Amino acid sequence: MITLASDFGSPYPAAMRGVLLRQCDARLADVTHELPRQDVRAAAFWLGFVLPEFPPAVHLAVVDPGVGTDRDALVVRAGDHALVGPDNGSLLPPARRLADARSASVEVFTYAYDDPDSATFHGRDVFAPAAARVHRTGVADVENLDAVTPAPSFVDLSFPDPAVDDDGATGEVLVVDDFGNVVTNVPGDVLDDLETVLVDGEAVPVGRSFAAVDPGERVVTVGSHGNVECDVNRGRGDEAFGLAPGDELRLDAPRG
Amino acid sequence: MITLASDFGSPYPAAMRGVLLRQCDARLADVTHELPRQDVRAAAFWLGFVLPEFPPAVHLAVVDPGVGTDRDALVVRAGDHALVGPDNGSLLPPARRLADARSASVEVFTYAYDDPDSATFHGRDVFAPAAARVHRTGVADVENLDAVTPAPSFVDLSFPDPAVDDDGATGEVLVVDDFGNVVTNVPGDVLDDLETVLVDGEAVPVGRSFAAVDPGERVVTVGSHGNVECDVNRGRGDEAFGLAPGDELRLDAPRG
Amino acid sequence: MITLASDFGSPYPAAMRGVLLRQCDARLADVTHELPRQDVRAAAFWLGFVLPEFPPAVHLAVVDPGVGTDRDALVVRAGDHALVGPDNGSLLPPARRLADARSASVEVFTYAYDDPDSATFHGRDVFAPAAARVHRTGVADVENLDAVTPAPSFVDLSFPDPAVDDDGATGEVLVVDDFGNVVTNVPGDVLDDLETVLVDGEAVPVGRSFAAVDPGERVVTVGSHGNVECDVNRGRGDEAFGLAPGDELRLDAPRG
Repeated sequence: MITLASDFGSPYPAAMRGVLLRQCDARLADVTHELPRQDVRAAAFWLGFVLPEFPPAVHLAVVDPGVGTDRDALVVRAGDHALVGPDNGSLLPPARRLADARSASVEVFTYAYDDPDSATFHGRDVFAPAAARVHRTGVADVENLDAVTPAPSFVDLSFPDPAVDDDGATGEVLVVDDFGNVVTNVPGDVLDDLETVLVDGEAVPVGRSFAAVDPGERVVTVGSHGNVECDVNRGRGDEAFGLAPGDELRLDAPRG
Repeated sequence: MITLASDFGSPYPAAMRGVLLRQCDARLADVTHELPRQDVRAAAFWLGFVLPEFPPAVHLAVVDPGVGTDRDALVVRAGDHALVGPDNGSLLPPARRLADARSASVEVFTYAYDDPDSATFHGRDVFAPAAARVHRTGVADVENLDAVTPAPSFVDLSFPDPAVDDDGATGEVLVVDDFGNVVTNVPGDVLDDLETVLVDGEAVPVGRSFAAVDPGERVVTVGSHGNVECDVNRGRGDEAFGLAPGDELRLDAPRG
Repeated sequence: MITLASDFGSPYPAAMRGVLLRQCDARLADVTHELPRQDVRAAAFWLGFVLPEFPPAVHLAVVDPGVGTDRDALVVRAGDHALVGPDNGSLLPPARRLADARSASVEVFTYAYDDPDSATFHGRDVFAPAAARVHRTGVADVENLDAVTPAPSFVDLSFPDPAVDDDGATGEVLVVDDFGNVVTNVPGDVLDDLETVLVDGEAVPVGRSFAAVDPGERVVTVGSHGNVECDVNRGRGDEAFGLAPGDELRLDAPRG
């Protein structure tokens, strides 16, 4: 199986799909092609969120603001999964999540490629053919590909750690989803036993889900990724809280 | 085969896709993940429109504004099709359409589930695993699943009936599609033999299709669902008619 | 294999998918359903861009502003590929690209159809069933279908030729992609050996890719289709250059 993810919108993903269908017999499954555009960190977050749900696969993942520069192409192995994409950090957080779930290690390989036809569409000309080759060879044998060598170095990316203290936590907004839900880097357990939490000083109910509050009301929940989310029931949390990716936020237990 | 429908946009549908691919060997076919957000009635309409085109399948259909409440999960059988999703009425109209086409009855089952990891993503944690189980067991044997029992009660949903009289009909806008076409609940035959129809008192040409009028002009047609539509050729009917879902509208034959 | 392309957005493509799955056993691959709405020329461009990447297939391609008129349905064969869709020119440019890559000729057939249930959804009622039949029969035997006859005439479409002269070229904007990149009809080789080009008199750097300039800066590149593109690194070229599909533009080498 090969999964496809990108920030390409339409119609460019079809060119990658065509290349894969022409060059190998893998079953294909789209992840999404609506990743936030050229946002490497958001790509890393969302890929880390969804790829662990999949059975063993080659994951073609192309969010590539550096296309046309001399940045490398990577193949990253995490147990029986492999990720193929640009060397910009986007593959490492999902690879670590895949590896952790399998008690496997993350192995990073450089994939050597000739200068392709186009300097602007490596998804079609470099990464899709690489994913097809990795699939044909098999993830377990990826180092046998002549284009593949252990990476002497590579771009890594980690999400910022929140600062948890006795009163609460100082964290950061990682992404905002399509519903406007504000996903932070603060682990959900800071909300344990709280019925209300102060978000940047304002009291907001804590709920198991959006439905804990009336439509249009703000609520702080633990999202499906395990982190604190700032949401609005049937509305947009980003607008109601005035929060965007990269913003800092402070969560405090109310004073007794 | 399992079909997938939701209002999740991107990237959440990928998590359901991954779960299905991991938990069963069904062929997957996306219906859409752009159903109008948290709009149970629109979901029921569109699912009723498209699901009857499919061969026998398990239809995973998640538009779920009540996620995280104690609303039930349902498996609804309609002949050789089954629908899996939340108990909010969205599954019943499509189930009736599927059953009618097969002279089958609609059977509604409750699907018991343990409290999942996340209170906000039952699509991934409850409904996708349920659909995979129904697929593995087979639609014909769904009552043999230990989680499945005949539903003592469930939320139903019907579309409002139009009031048809000698002069025309009083109806309601059910949905507006991506093109801006205004779909009503009025059966197409009220337009029989009419060249013009009064929409809320204003005369509009009746056409077999958009192309019956010049680009930018309003036209009333019978849509592909069999109901009256208010459209604009190469434009948006919702804007030109000032109509939105839930609005009442009056159709009259012009006075002779 | 059957590929699907349209300008239908959501949820109408699902009805075509259902019909195909019900009527044949082809593997399905979506191209896109976000082609620019009712824009025959853009459809022709993008289909010509992506379809040659696919292995032999039946390509169902429905951008059909004339639905409900008496325009014909076509089956166009290009070697081991076939295209099925409306007779409005959209199929011919991609067919020529598919044929050229295979040293094959383009053969145009009319596909006769009965008046369908709906005058507004021929994608479901005419073209998807036609694609399923072509797939079942096989592209090589398409003329054996009783509905298929050599087309006595058909609508063709060609992209305008640029006027290349000693100083540069006068061209036209063909399409703007989702990223805002402005794709012209000017062949990339007019940029050979240039470090700067005058776009409508203003000097803009020529780069191998977006990344040749700083974020937010304008750059002229050769796109993945081989034509000149007017782009902005991590921004929208259409806004920065003030160019839209159909606009003329002049490219000149700077005076020595």
